[in-house]
Formats: sequence, structure tokens, C-alpha cells
Amino acid sequence: MSVFTSWPPNLTTEQLDQLTVLATTYALSHSLLYLPPVSSQNAPPPAPESAIHAPISLIPAPIPRRLFSHALTLQRAYNTLYARVALDVSFLDHVMGHGGVADVDDFTSALWSAWKRLRVDGVPQPLHLGLFRSDYLLHQPTSDDPISLKQVEFNTISSSFGPLSQRVAGMHRNLPINDTTKGLAEGLAEAHRAYDDPDAYVLFVVQPNERNIFDQRLLEYQLFESHRIRVVRRTFAELGLTASISASRALIIAPVIPGLNADPVEISVVYYRSGYAPVDYASPADYATRGLLESSRAAQCPSLALQLAGTKKVQEVLTRPGMLERFLTQEEGAAALRGSWVRIWSLDADDGAGAEEAVRCAHELVLKPQREGGGNNIYRDSIPPFVEQLPPQERAAWVAMELIRPPRSIGAYLVRSGAGRVNVHVMSELGVFGWALFGEGREVKEKQAGWLVRTKAEDVNEGGVAAGFGVLDSVLLVD
Amino acid sequence: MSVFTSWPPNLTTEQLDQLTVLATTYALSHSLLYLPPVSSQNAPPPAPESAIHAPISLIPAPIPRRLFSHALTLQRAYNTLYARVALDVSFLDHVMGHGGVADVDDFTSALWSAWKRLRVDGVPQPLHLGLFRSDYLLHQPTSDDPISLKQVEFNTISSSFGPLSQRVAGMHRNLPINDTTKGLAEGLAEAHRAYDDPDAYVLFVVQPNERNIFDQRLLEYQLFESHRIRVVRRTFAELGLTASISASRALIIAPVIPGLNADPVEISVVYYRSGYAPVDYASPADYATRGLLESSRAAQCPSLALQLAGTKKVQEVLTRPGMLERFLTQEEGAAALRGSWVRIWSLDADDGAGAEEAVRCAHELVLKPQREGGGNNIYRDSIPPFVEQLPPQERAAWVAMELIRPPRSIGAYLVRSGAGRVNVHVMSELGVFGWALFGEGREVKEKQAGWLVRTKAEDVNEGGVAAGFGVLDSVLLVD
Repeated sequence: MSVFTSWPPNLTTEQLDQLTVLATTYALSHSLLYLPPVSSQNAPPPAPESAIHAPISLIPAPIPRRLFSHALTLQRAYNTLYARVALDVSFLDHVMGHGGVADVDDFTSALWSAWKRLRVDGVPQPLHLGLFRSDYLLHQPTSDDPISLKQVEFNTISSSFGPLSQRVAGMHRNLPINDTTKGLAEGLAEAHRAYDDPDAYVLFVVQPNERNIFDQRLLEYQLFESHRIRVVRRTFAELGLTASISASRALIIAPVIPGLNADPVEISVVYYRSGYAPVDYASPADYATRGLLESSRAAQCPSLALQLAGTKKVQEVLTRPGMLERFLTQEEGAAALRGSWVRIWSLDADDGAGAEEAVRCAHELVLKPQREGGGNNIYRDSIPPFVEQLPPQERAAWVAMELIRPPRSIGAYLVRSGAGRVNVHVMSELGVFGWALFGEGREVKEKQAGWLVRTKAEDVNEGGVAAGFGVLDSVLLVD
Repeated sequence: MSVFTSWPPNLTTEQLDQLTVLATTYALSHSLLYLPPVSSQNAPPPAPESAIHAPISLIPAPIPRRLFSHALTLQRAYNTLYARVALDVSFLDHVMGHGGVADVDDFTSALWSAWKRLRVDGVPQPLHLGLFRSDYLLHQPTSDDPISLKQVEFNTISSSFGPLSQRVAGMHRNLPINDTTKGLAEGLAEAHRAYDDPDAYVLFVVQPNERNIFDQRLLEYQLFESHRIRVVRRTFAELGLTASISASRALIIAPVIPGLNADPVEISVVYYRSGYAPVDYASPADYATRGLLESSRAAQCPSLALQLAGTKKVQEVLTRPGMLERFLTQEEGAAALRGSWVRIWSLDADDGAGAEEAVRCAHELVLKPQREGGGNNIYRDSIPPFVEQLPPQERAAWVAMELIRPPRSIGAYLVRSGAGRVNVHVMSELGVFGWALFGEGREVKEKQAGWLVRTKAEDVNEGGVAAGFGVLDSVLLVD
């Protein structure tokens, strides 16, 4: 039983800091929560807006297996016992009533009197239900004694912490969760398996001060729980200091601080949750880092090529006659894809005709720049003056796109933490997830991986959930 | 498609307030979360301590089933399409490189140049992985047109909100969760079924300003998700105004405000998460309310009798010779139960001998009052002076109990939101849950229902998790 004195394992401050982040994040994202304290200055909001993690132990408590098992076994006898006690009126009267505890304890007296009154009034006794909790401590009077289990008390009312306790077990043990998460993780896992080193890690390249971390962490948990694949998270700045490529072109990530992953780890898949907008690259060094990562054997999610394939410009080019058919046969669904597109053209199309057309049809158009990040689109009446002042050589950076027109006057209630609820007319955007794993001379492996609905006020031209304009939503299927 | 204009359903402000509480609580406890905003004044804590709910829509968005299905079907073609685009070097060079977008957009240029450099350097191209999201809007130019689906864009990098989206679907649809929670809910459901009115509600009697609401809400969700049983939550004060008993002794609860449950509801089971301590009864009216509830046909969890059966006094009495055997045979585990007990006796035992014994053995004892709530126990050296000044007629309110002695010097790291992490020697308390459903002349139905470990610093005599002394923990099974 030497584990009792050698517990918990010896960890450095840095390791503990890392474990603490993992634990509190796990707790917050697995509903191991409390509402925040309420002070006289701060009344609680009408609907809860935030939560804090419940008090937790970083590392689980050692308990002898046989005693744990014994305590579980005992419970049924306890259940029966207290049921029978509660049914024994004369016993309880004797112990709790006049001449018993009721004489010396006001609270007990009040409870017993209330019960007595019901009986005097002839009210038939109800069906009882006990949700019990029997509490024990390990017991070892001296270090020479065997450890045993002793009951502290048996709770018959308000036995709490069952659900939260289940979550703590999950935190320590990583219980399974579950379809979008699973679908996306399968994609990452497929790439990981293709790398053919089960001990390699998946690298999440992330922004500093990311607020949407749960969305990322849930994928991380899924990867570990379903596939036993571990994740390391790094910003570009951190990777500039810690990423290197081996002679065999393995991507190696050194620890940022001497911590839980004290040895450098090899990376199977690089998954970018940063790097999609200029602001993500603080300096030319960050571009160099991106290149360094892609120079490795690790699968890139996405590769630079794939990121480029996802630009608005490519979206526009694909709509040109015959272009889509370069990539996809009719049997593979080319016509169906095309049927899902609105008209798109480049402002520099046809020697100026593209710009003229955009001015002429301005009222039903949006102009989109190649640049990502939102907030740069030009709508309707703003288009003609914008096009007038645009130097012709910059036209190629803009595409004109027919405005999609959602059904109008659909109401919704949008709720944002700290900003309450608004009732507005909205439009909803459906997103469908998928993944594909592919490479030169290799069959494309791919799947559909779930969906997303985001909703925003219909008079707001653009802006995403993270920017505070839209909200996450789901779908009512109507016929 | 009239649902589009009649959506969402017409709800009163009070109904919306209630829905909002349900939705944000569901979101917080199902990891539909964001970290709080960070300001220049408030740096984020080293480990996250709190979370806010992600922006959400209170009611799901209507989308035609055929279009939703169509969008899911399209995804595989899109996956294939973008994979092939990314593999077509000359296509991408042509569109994105010199003479293309790279000439007019610095960011694209930087990405393309980085890719180009890799190719020039002869770095073999990596395995690509795309985690995609294709975004659509419903499209209906005029109200006479059929609604169709049009693509907004196709994301090949950082496609986010998959996991959170899954949770929103859960919020709107109540997806199943899962053993302590399930076990406890089964108990409530068993009692509900015994009441034999599927439309009845379970009543949770709760404290005002409860902070541990997730622990309660998770049970509520489980009841609905696994058993389709609905819950209504009320404080004693609210019940004083809204509870009544029908001629057939049904317990009827009127709405507190005209809200979601605008009709009065009949109660199958009363589940008390309040009422276990004097402070829960603000006035005699609250005791009257408790009595009123128990005068109904609704199952009581616990009944007054069962609550009384759970007192320390009963715990003491059961340890007396022959007492346990009144309730439980040897075959049913009486000896095993007794083996889990330490010595307990009443201070008024044997005409003063009980008090004398407590003074004599003080160093290995704790005195516990009948009163619940913690903080009133008397330990070791404090016992003799306490007993000296205790009026003999109050002795019956106190039991002396042998101190259980957990193994010493077990270390742990306890983490509390707002208070950071402490490394201390601890003791851990194991709780085992169970339930029993029983009544006069009826077989006891019961089950074991999971467990709980709470850990606290070993030099803290008492105090629970809610009081801020202990933490929730789980178990490492050692042999």
C-alpha cells in the first residue's frame, strides 16, 4: 500500500500548471460547474450567463480496491435498512418523538410534529422514495493496522453531488463523449494513422488568447477518447521557438517550458486553427514557420495548397464555363454542385465588362475581397462609388457575387451572455462539415461530418459568431 | 411553408424568461461555452476558472427538410472537388500566383510564395487533410419563388463550431447523456411510474439562490431525456403560494407567474433539495407547506419519516445491541453493516455514564449534535469542557462517536475557482449512492446508484464541498 505515501506523483510547478489548465478546462467543458458567487452588489442575472468550475482534485484519491468494492456491495443492505426504519412508526416515535430527540431539538421536533399531525389527521402515509448516500472514511488507527472502511453517516435527504461526481470521474478518466465532434476527429485520426506512428501527436496551431477554446478542446478530447491520439497546442510564436525538422523530415516539437511533455514530440498531423487571416502572422517569421511545418512529413490540415483552393477567387473561377468539369464528372455530382451556386464573376473579367456589370446590377450584388476575416464586403448601393475609385489593377482582388436572399421575417430570439436576449428577424446559415484525406497518386478518402446552423439578424450584412453578430443555432425540419 | 412566417411560436415575456433560463443553463452544463472576455485590466487566470455560454438561438431555425438533406448529400462531391483542386498545381499557380491573385493581395501572395518556395526547394508535397465546412443560405428572391439552397462559401481552414454546434442541437433536442445521474433518475422515475400518471411532474423543492444548480439540473435533464418526465422547481416560499391538494389528494402546483407551464400541474414525486436544515424553513408557514406536500398522494423523497430515519440519533440507536437485527437479518447483511460502524453512543446513555465515557475518551472522539448543517461538531480536547457546561437535559441531543482515522500524509492538489491550487495532505470520503422505493405493505424496490469521493485537507475537522472546504474527487483503484 506504498502508494498512499508516494501519492501524488512528484511533479514540477510547470507540470502542475499545465495539469491545472487541462483539469479546469475539462471541468468547464464537461459541466463540472457552479454558478458564480452572488454578492449584494451583483445580483444574479435573470438567466445564468456564466459558470465557474466546481472545486476539484487535480489527481484522484487512492482507495483500496477491495474496500471500494465492499462499500458498493454494502449499499443494498443500507437501502433496505433505512426503508424499514422509516416504516417503523413506533420505533421512530420512540426515538424521535416526545421523550426522545423532539424534546431537545427544535428542528427535529418540528419535523416529527408535522409527521405526527398527518397521522393524527388520518392522512394515509405516502409512497417513500429515498435517494441515499452512505459516507465512509478509510480507517487505520496506526500504520501497523490494516486499512478498513468506516461509515461517517447515511444521508436520506438532499444527497447531492451524484451528477457532478460522475463528471469528476470523467475528468480523471476521460469518459467517452460523442457526431460532428466524432466526424471531425475521424478525419484527423485517419491522417494520423496514415502517418504510421501511433505515438506521434497531432499539433493544433492556435491563436494566442483564443476565446473559443472549448470548440477546439472538445475535438482534442475526442481524439484521445476515441483514438488514443494526443494533441499538443502551439501558437505560431511558440512554434518559431520549438518546431524543427529532422533528417527524415519528421516534424519535432520541443516543450515550450519543461513540463508534462518534457520530451520533444513527433507530429503526425498539423491542424491549423490559426493562420487563416493576415493578423495571424505577426511577422515574416510566422510565414517561415508555416513553411517549416509544411516542409515536414506531417499531414497538413490544411496544406497551403488546400488553403488556397478555399479562396473566394477559386470559388469564382470554378463557376466559369467548363471549369468545374475539370475536377468533377457529371456522375460525381458536378451539375448538382453548380445548381447550388449563385452567379459570381471577377471585377476584372472581360476587360472591364466585369466592373461595369457590377455597377449595373449593384442592387442585387455583394463585392467580396480576396482578403479573409469579414467586415470588408461592399453591398448594393455602395458598390458603384466603390468601383469608380478602385484602381483597375486591383479589380482582380474582388469578386462580384449575386446576393442570396433568404426568406424574410423569420423571427428568433438570440441570447448572448452579458447582452441578454433580443427578438429580431433573422436569417440562418447552414454549414455542412466534411473531411477528405488525399495526396498525390492516392485515392481521396472522404466523409460528410455533420452540420451547423448559425443565425443572425437579417439587417446585419455580415459578421460571424466569434465577432458577436451571429449565434449558434440548430434546425427544425419542416416539410 | 407557412411555418416561416409563423415562426417562432407566440410566447409571452414570462415564457421567454423561463425558456431563456432553461436554455442558458442547458448551454452552461453541456459545455456550450466560451471563456469570458479578457480586458486589459483583467488578465485571464493561469488556468480557466469560469466560462460564459456561447451565443445561442432560443428556438431552432426552420429549414426545409429536402434542402437540408440535399446539403448533406452535396458534401461528398464538395470534398472530392476541393481535394482535386488542391492537387492541381498548374491550376492554382495560374489562379493564385504571378499574374493572378498574388499580384493584388499580399496575404495570398505570402501563402502562395511559401508554397512555391517549398516546391522550388524540392520538398515533397505532404499528405493533405481538409476539415471542411460548406456554408449555405436559403434562397428565395420573391415570395412566389420556391425556396432553394445557395452556397455562401466553402471553408478549407479552421472550420469551427462543429463541436459547439452539436451541443446546440442537443440543447434544442435534448440528446441523451449518461451512471450516477442515471441511477438517481431511475429512482425518481420508478416513483413516478408508481404514481401512474405519465403526465404528472416531479417537483424539486429547492433553496432560493442555490449555487449548485447544475448538480440538480443534470438530474432534471436525465429525467426528461431517459424517461420523458418533466420537472418543476419551487422554493418553499413559492410553494406556500402555489401548492394545493385536490379532493383526491393530488398535489397541484399552480404557476408562480403565468409562464411556460401556464396550467397547474399535478405532482407525482416531491424531491427535496431543500428542507434538510433549519435555515431552510424561514417561518412556521414553511413547515406547514412541508406538511401540505406530504399530505398528498405524491411520493415523498424523502418522506418526513425517512428524513427522520436519517438522523444521527437513529444512527446511534441502531448501533445498540439487537437494534440493527430488528430491521435486517444476518442473511441480509446485518453483520457486514455493523462491521462498517465505529462506536457511537448517546451522551445521555446509562444515566450519565455516556457523558462520563465521552470525557474519558475525549481524545479519540467527536461529539455530534442532532442538528444538521455542519460546523457544530465538538472535537477531542474541546469535549470535556463542553460536556461540563452542557445541561444534562440536552445530552440526548448529542452523540459521541469514535473518530475514524484515515491514512495520513496523502498528498493532493485541490483547485478552487478563484482561489487557485493548494498542495496539502488530505483525507478522502467515499460516498455510495442508492435508492429505495417503498411503502406500507409493499416490497422494497432498491438499487445501488454510483458513488462519490470528496477530499479535504486532513487538518480541517469538518466542512463540505458547498461550504468551500472540500473538493470533488474520484478514485484510483489500488491493490
